[in-house]
Amino acid sequence: MIIVLRPDATREQKDHVIKKIKSLGFQAHVSEGTERTIIGAIGDEAALQTVPLEAIPGVEKVLPILKPFKLASRDFRPENTIVTVGKEAIGGKRIAIVAGPCAVENKTLLVEIAKSVKDAGANFLRGGAFKPRTSPYAFQGLEEEGLKYLADARERTGLPIVTEVMDVRDIDLIAKYADILQIGARNMQNFRLLKEVGLCKKPILLKRGISATIKEWLMSAEYIMAGGNRDVILCERGIRTYETATRNTLDLSAVPVLKQMTHLPVVVDPSHAVGKWDLVAPMAKAAVAAGADGLLIEVHSNPEEALCDGEQSLKPKAFKQLMDEMRPIAAAVGREI
Amino acid sequence: MIIVLRPDATREQKDHVIKKIKSLGFQAHVSEGTERTIIGAIGDEAALQTVPLEAIPGVEKVLPILKPFKLASRDFRPENTIVTVGKEAIGGKRIAIVAGPCAVENKTLLVEIAKSVKDAGANFLRGGAFKPRTSPYAFQGLEEEGLKYLADARERTGLPIVTEVMDVRDIDLIAKYADILQIGARNMQNFRLLKEVGLCKKPILLKRGISATIKEWLMSAEYIMAGGNRDVILCERGIRTYETATRNTLDLSAVPVLKQMTHLPVVVDPSHAVGKWDLVAPMAKAAVAAGADGLLIEVHSNPEEALCDGEQSLKPKAFKQLMDEMRPIAAAVGREI
Amino acid sequence: MIIVLRPDATREQKDHVIKKIKSLGFQAHVSEGTERTIIGAIGDEAALQTVPLEAIPGVEKVLPILKPFKLASRDFRPENTIVTVGKEAIGGKRIAIVAGPCAVENKTLLVEIAKSVKDAGANFLRGGAFKPRTSPYAFQGLEEEGLKYLADARERTGLPIVTEVMDVRDIDLIAKYADILQIGARNMQNFRLLKEVGLCKKPILLKRGISATIKEWLMSAEYIMAGGNRDVILCERGIRTYETATRNTLDLSAVPVLKQMTHLPVVVDPSHAVGKWDLVAPMAKAAVAAGADGLLIEVHSNPEEALCDGEQSLKPKAFKQLMDEMRPIAAAVGREI
Amino acid sequence: MIIVLRPDATREQKDHVIKKIKSLGFQAHVSEGTERTIIGAIGDEAALQTVPLEAIPGVEKVLPILKPFKLASRDFRPENTIVTVGKEAIGGKRIAIVAGPCAVENKTLLVEIAKSVKDAGANFLRGGAFKPRTSPYAFQGLEEEGLKYLADARERTGLPIVTEVMDVRDIDLIAKYADILQIGARNMQNFRLLKEVGLCKKPILLKRGISATIKEWLMSAEYIMAGGNRDVILCERGIRTYETATRNTLDLSAVPVLKQMTHLPVVVDPSHAVGKWDLVAPMAKAAVAAGADGLLIEVHSNPEEALCDGEQSLKPKAFKQLMDEMRPIAAAVGREI
Repeated sequence: MIIVLRPDATREQKDHVIKKIKSLGFQAHVSEGTERTIIGAIGDEAALQTVPLEAIPGVEKVLPILKPFKLASRDFRPENTIVTVGKEAIGGKRIAIVAGPCAVENKTLLVEIAKSVKDAGANFLRGGAFKPRTSPYAFQGLEEEGLKYLADARERTGLPIVTEVMDVRDIDLIAKYADILQIGARNMQNFRLLKEVGLCKKPILLKRGISATIKEWLMSAEYIMAGGNRDVILCERGIRTYETATRNTLDLSAVPVLKQMTHLPVVVDPSHAVGKWDLVAPMAKAAVAAGADGLLIEVHSNPEEALCDGEQSLKPKAFKQLMDEMRPIAAAVGREI
Repeated sequence: MIIVLRPDATREQKDHVIKKIKSLGFQAHVSEGTERTIIGAIGDEAALQTVPLEAIPGVEKVLPILKPFKLASRDFRPENTIVTVGKEAIGGKRIAIVAGPCAVENKTLLVEIAKSVKDAGANFLRGGAFKPRTSPYAFQGLEEEGLKYLADARERTGLPIVTEVMDVRDIDLIAKYADILQIGARNMQNFRLLKEVGLCKKPILLKRGISATIKEWLMSAEYIMAGGNRDVILCERGIRTYETATRNTLDLSAVPVLKQMTHLPVVVDPSHAVGKWDLVAPMAKAAVAAGADGLLIEVHSNPEEALCDGEQSLKPKAFKQLMDEMRPIAAAVGREI
Repeated sequence: MIIVLRPDATREQKDHVIKKIKSLGFQAHVSEGTERTIIGAIGDEAALQTVPLEAIPGVEKVLPILKPFKLASRDFRPENTIVTVGKEAIGGKRIAIVAGPCAVENKTLLVEIAKSVKDAGANFLRGGAFKPRTSPYAFQGLEEEGLKYLADARERTGLPIVTEVMDVRDIDLIAKYADILQIGARNMQNFRLLKEVGLCKKPILLKRGISATIKEWLMSAEYIMAGGNRDVILCERGIRTYETATRNTLDLSAVPVLKQMTHLPVVVDPSHAVGKWDLVAPMAKAAVAAGADGLLIEVHSNPEEALCDGEQSLKPKAFKQLMDEMRPIAAAVGREI
Repeated sequence: MIIVLRPDATREQKDHVIKKIKSLGFQAHVSEGTERTIIGAIGDEAALQTVPLEAIPGVEKVLPILKPFKLASRDFRPENTIVTVGKEAIGGKRIAIVAGPCAVENKTLLVEIAKSVKDAGANFLRGGAFKPRTSPYAFQGLEEEGLKYLADARERTGLPIVTEVMDVRDIDLIAKYADILQIGARNMQNFRLLKEVGLCKKPILLKRGISATIKEWLMSAEYIMAGGNRDVILCERGIRTYETATRNTLDLSAVPVLKQMTHLPVVVDPSHAVGKWDLVAPMAKAAVAAGADGLLIEVHSNPEEALCDGEQSLKPKAFKQLMDEMRPIAAAVGREI
């Protein structure tokens, strides 16, 4: 931690800062520059990160040296984490394709979609039984009934299932049915939910908050990992910007940035990012080229009747075509689909 | 709802859209323009807002005419809502001043701060017992012990208390102690929490999400109100932008915008918005001038030892001075403090 | 154009709006909805887009139906524009690779870099002779001397050159040397410069403004095209968001969005977007997969001595490797490099 | 400047960084921390700010200690700059009110508006003769004729005039008529224009770029000041965010932030920020309360016929009422109007 003093800081203020740092168990390394005095605090920086050093009179600013997360960082674990679910894995050579409808709507439709995505080569089935909706008047999901349909679809296709958990009270129920629990963008900083899924034995797919920095996102992964659950998958799903031509702005550069900062697998959800079905394919391909470990893609047999996000869903035929088009790109970056 | 067809939409596609609209119980009003055909759907627009009309082939875009919220809108209730708590009120002529520490740290300190803000003219005491922290390693709050200290401080000062709820499982406990429950920015779209506090009998102070639009924020108020709780107070606390000179960017224009769109009271939290104590006073004054119904201000006797957000806390003396400076501004806009 | 009236609009206000629309040569198509009256203005919408209809009492909002640009739109010209420069082209099957240093620094170095990028397969040489720098104290470019070096490098390698113009007074000079004139992000709405290059006979590479919407960007292309110059190439180079892990956020979804909205070629500059050399390769590949017609990539033989943007420059060897890695991706999307 | 090495930096890399720093005339102050080695470069930091230290192998990041601007900083000049224009001043106790139409449209109208704002207490007349318009098809201004009308209005009212310059070729012409030259938001980083107005003898009103950081804005002021013109007035006019309820988001916290960082006067343009006339008054009052040195307010006698920005213009009567309402707020913050 580097503490920069104001140009008008007094001797007493400087001494006070030094004393404070030492009292917290750090060495103080003072450096008198041409225009500013700076003080380096030598020791385990994590212990200082929650101390309000900027509240001390005479301090101009505080510059942290290290990242605020530990378990999630590549410093802590240099090799890639591979999350395995039965015979499937996320983070290895094979790119994981998680496909399915936004919401589980009924049994027949779900099985139909599940079979079609399986045939096209998907590895996982997605579908929401508990849905976070902006409007209290919109369809909120089938809840446990939806989970049962998902389990049934898994039985018929062999595809492990990914579904969202929104409420600490539902974790046990959902974990009974699902293979991977998803934390949605709106709950990325629902810290109680993060803590509780940290105690869960199932892998967690953690979506990036709609305006979360990459650091904040990794801090949320840290919450889960600090609870004991090391199987965290990060999912980029678009961030909020001023641009309205797409639902969100897909931040694909987050993929290589994360690959440097963390050992956790990184998947991309182009469907929620762009919000329009005819933009999904190019962004899915781009995600593969950028190095993503997997993709979440919304597929629906009849988008205009979908109870949720129909406008961004691919029909099974378009999904199959996309799968075929992505394979040579995966090969070009040393992966496979 | 206005549906704009693509220039290349076929006759069949047009007919399909019209049939669809009629099947949903709407009249279709077709208007052939110079370059586009547009179709107006006449009826209760709310029923259409969750139908994925953009997924229909031949549709270029869909333009909603109405706001997606109802109970929260000024159309629904033209007069201002005034939330009363004992002898205090938020939304009336008197500007409500909610002051206190970020987190409840210990009994003595809390009472000391409570007395000082009461003496300076504050109407409410704030303080977190359950703290949402970006880092799992930071101080997470005293929980029920903290609530007891708050109740004790209320008893000694008469100030009603405002404190945050983060978890559906804590609502009953917190409601037992608190006068107003706060939903923090990170939970503005924690829809389960919103639904549950909608069933609660205490007023809810709903902070704006860090990148929530004003419409989304009002949709979250709608969630609470749809559950039966009409006492919702909106709190602007800064939004995320690219600017890093302040912790967030205080969007004061949200105050007059909300005054047009909703009947709910609007308060402002300049402390979290700016993130630095020496910027709080000018922004608090500006909030009063912009028409805010209240302010949340962080006050701490010893900011550099604070367990949370010390860098943005005013000392009691500075808070008192600010209160004195705000009074003539309040008077200038027809209010009082 | 759709005009939505306020719920409290009077009969006189409604009549005034209708009269106004008619006086401007439009038909007024009135539709009385359940909660709002809406008025459609039938006619050439472009003529209405600069009329302040929202300033009329009783008007709640105005919804445009058409895009505000014409010459740049795909409605106007359905087939792709291919910009040709000698034997090279941008917008055809072959992906154009524009490589070179940020700034022209000296003759030897430029020729060395030009040869290396030529050998690796680049089609164009880039290099700034006039540099827009955030600081007045930074290196501002070699000006005409730099242009001469560029022309010399072209002669030695056969690569056409792309270089930036910042000032209306330099257009003739730069056009004498350059094959393509670049308008930088900071000048995307320097309308006088746009007008003047609209009169120029050389193709214009128009970078997206740092926070320009796609619509505003196309309006800037429209400025150039309205002057008579139809050879405009759009260049996505990252937009400003709250995220600081990268210099800007590369908005790759702009590529497929633009492909729907306009016939103009779209290239991508991953170097400026990410700002760090080790993030350039994955984003360059992603851009190819997303359908870009070309790439701008900064290459420098000795980045740590570069006078501009050294931290984001690839060394020639890394550039060559990237070229090799991009070829199969280009092939996978039906293109070639 | 603090240089942080990567945890895997080699001895050779460290030595290379130290050698490099010394070769540039700095002392290197090495500090071996628990997890990182950091190197402080002691000397005139400005000289290092354009060296690409992050391009050096082994360097993880570079942390600047000082601000990158000098002449504009309060370190350089602790007392406030007061810009005087005849008998008027900006930056002193009296708050400067700059009012008038967006664009100069005709002589009669301009004089009418000028008289009305003068009567209401404005100190300056604003009006554009050269207009930067997003669309090439919109009204572009009356050019020199407009300047003559402005001069005529000045003669009749005594109000000094503020008008925009967009093109280096117009500076002499505009400076012949205007009292203050305005650089618009879109030209804030038109560095050639900044350089040229730095040679001009008239004060410059520099609007903040639509997504400029406060630091970048001050760097643009520095460009002007480095040319010799020290009379720079900064104008906050709203920044681009994701929120669409207002045209831009007025960043009022920029006012106190700038007051700490610079000695230059700071004015606020609420009209362009909010984009709707009925939101202007509360934000104008808030700006005064926040400590602004002046306001730019758009006034038009007949907004619905305005050729530019009619929807955000106040009528003279509403302007007069606002002036009356702002006076007690100005008094409350120790200023006058």
